[in-house]
Amino acid sequence: MTTPRVSFFYAPHTRAGGTLALFEELGVDYDLHLLSLKAGTQRAPAYLAINPMGKVPAIVHDGALVAEQPAVFIYLADLYPEKGLAPAIGDPLRGPYLRWLVFYGSCFEPAIVDRAMKREPAPPSTSPYGSWEQVYDTLVAQLATGPWLFGERFTAADVLWGTALNWTTTFQLVPEHPVIRGYIDRVLARPAMQRALAKDAGYAAQQG
Amino acid sequence: MTTPRVSFFYAPHTRAGGTLALFEELGVDYDLHLLSLKAGTQRAPAYLAINPMGKVPAIVHDGALVAEQPAVFIYLADLYPEKGLAPAIGDPLRGPYLRWLVFYGSCFEPAIVDRAMKREPAPPSTSPYGSWEQVYDTLVAQLATGPWLFGERFTAADVLWGTALNWTTTFQLVPEHPVIRGYIDRVLARPAMQRALAKDAGYAAQQG
Repeated sequence: MTTPRVSFFYAPHTRAGGTLALFEELGVDYDLHLLSLKAGTQRAPAYLAINPMGKVPAIVHDGALVAEQPAVFIYLADLYPEKGLAPAIGDPLRGPYLRWLVFYGSCFEPAIVDRAMKREPAPPSTSPYGSWEQVYDTLVAQLATGPWLFGERFTAADVLWGTALNWTTTFQLVPEHPVIRGYIDRVLARPAMQRALAKDAGYAAQQG
Repeated sequence: MTTPRVSFFYAPHTRAGGTLALFEELGVDYDLHLLSLKAGTQRAPAYLAINPMGKVPAIVHDGALVAEQPAVFIYLADLYPEKGLAPAIGDPLRGPYLRWLVFYGSCFEPAIVDRAMKREPAPPSTSPYGSWEQVYDTLVAQLATGPWLFGERFTAADVLWGTALNWTTTFQLVPEHPVIRGYIDRVLARPAMQRALAKDAGYAAQQG
């Protein structure tokens, strides 16, 4: 088991919920640093000194900050290889695994932001994601094989995509689709995901 | 040395130039697949069957597609550990290295697109990058120590950031700053970067 422990900077009802779920799937201990969006502590000087972007999730391990969800996921899943949530370097799934984690931050999120803002994407030569249809069709095609993003192999990428698709369909930013619905249901049915959702709700209630 | 060879899907004068430079820094052979933005071959069915997002750079290795620049960089630098361009898993720089590669696609590119489109960023709760000032200040602070992103250790992240800052300052999407200018100049002065720029120009001339 790796020492020192990981510090996890988190606020309930934010994108940090995916990392909370990843810790549950990993089944490892960590030091929780609870921030509050309502109180604005993620933009207070104390936190900006840790993560100058003022965002969660972020972790600090062995004195180093790791921020940006896909980076946090790659780092944590590699930190505990015995948990089997990351295809190792040299595994044929390593490339697709990196591709889908990075695709989340580089294509899916910018596409979702444009949809939330009701803006057209930038022209194809400028847009980091092309068109919404390309993102959606690429995603549905990947999930269609199932049960997970990479067939029978459940990975940390499923934790990220399962939680992300859960909130983006709830907010109707991603149109419902039987393939997406089935995938979300399978991810959410996992005991670790249920524990994470309960903890997220509990921390939110605690903040009032 | 790893076999089989990597197939590299590239078009001149695109974001794929960073990966061309990474191959030069690695000093490894690969199979080049030359696409043309002018001819639109990156959106032709033959290429969409390989990368449904119709974007370059992309690589195929051992039958698997790896797309999205930060994923391509993480994958390639890990594939040739003897070249020393990636801090290994367990190295204290591994987390910051992942953070800065992912930050490029998740924060810097969306911020640059908003600037190119002359759009306001989404509100802080929605924006993946907060504000342009946060992105810029975080970047300048990281580069200020120098000579590279992580002090004395040159990594694949410097290839990505050096090439990205070169074209974004050229197009005046990133305001000039002595720290940024000095960094670009140091990256571009490397023989491998010079070879990559010459090759990129050569392929562009070849396409007419």
